[in-house]
Amino acid sequence: MSNAQLTHLESLQAFLTARIAPARALGVTVAATDPVTISAPLEGNLNDKGTGFAGSLFSVAALAGWALITRWCAAADIDAEVALQSSKVRFLAPARGEFRAIAHELPDKQREKLARMLTRSGRGRAEVVVDVTCNEALVMSFTGAYAVTAIPREEMAPEEILPGE
Amino acid sequence: MSNAQLTHLESLQAFLTARIAPARALGVTVAATDPVTISAPLEGNLNDKGTGFAGSLFSVAALAGWALITRWCAAADIDAEVALQSSKVRFLAPARGEFRAIAHELPDKQREKLARMLTRSGRGRAEVVVDVTCNEALVMSFTGAYAVTAIPREEMAPEEILPGE
Repeated sequence: MSNAQLTHLESLQAFLTARIAPARALGVTVAATDPVTISAPLEGNLNDKGTGFAGSLFSVAALAGWALITRWCAAADIDAEVALQSSKVRFLAPARGEFRAIAHELPDKQREKLARMLTRSGRGRAEVVVDVTCNEALVMSFTGAYAVTAIPREEMAPEEILPGE
Repeated sequence: MSNAQLTHLESLQAFLTARIAPARALGVTVAATDPVTISAPLEGNLNDKGTGFAGSLFSVAALAGWALITRWCAAADIDAEVALQSSKVRFLAPARGEFRAIAHELPDKQREKLARMLTRSGRGRAEVVVDVTCNEALVMSFTGAYAVTAIPREEMAPEEILPGE
């Protein structure tokens, strides 16, 4: 699948379900794309305390950051691989229901820098802030640094190139 | 289940499987207790790049840190709730096979401080370093700060108190 297909909610959902095995196992859903919002139900993500498991909260946050950058690349017509490099997280309150990771848009300066780096060297880096909320309360804050590597079009399999490209 | 039952590999495995839903979904296994080692297969934890999903690596690391502190409490005959408060992680290489989170033992000073805090106020905090490896290579480094809250025995349900206690 080309990144170009990931701008819409349904295609992003289909991609997560098809290509990221834990997204299926944990019941992850793309709730919105503006802002990018990834949710998961409490059931299936319960810990020993009857609240959302830390690893599941991290997972939805990491996916939200990944989806934000991947969609930005798609909108800029860049096929790219996006991978989490490092992250800092704080767990602020227990999640006692469905939880949602909402990715903050990249500041203009960071977006311009990423575009410049990708044009110059095919590689870039961006830091994404994600809030995980439950019933309107902030339960986790996440900052993730993502590495972005442009994929030259000739490296793509023919079936991955969209008609008309 | 009392924490006292969590010192052995089989009981820790049974606890994770019974009480932490994502541990089941992701195929998490307690590989060893000395040092505490929590593993997961690549299958079921694959991302879009065909390597271990960041959220799954984080999950095994968070569980290894949790298990280390929980087992220390059990050995010290303290029933306690252990919860991750904050964490810093670095992803160093892709995991291309089964991955294992190995928790470093707490330094003596930190152990003594945790014991003192729990005795004095029933609350403490400990920082655990966890290495996640794949085929002997370090793929992720994790540092997690865990909050520890002692549970007074009278608060426990009768069936949770072991015979002879």
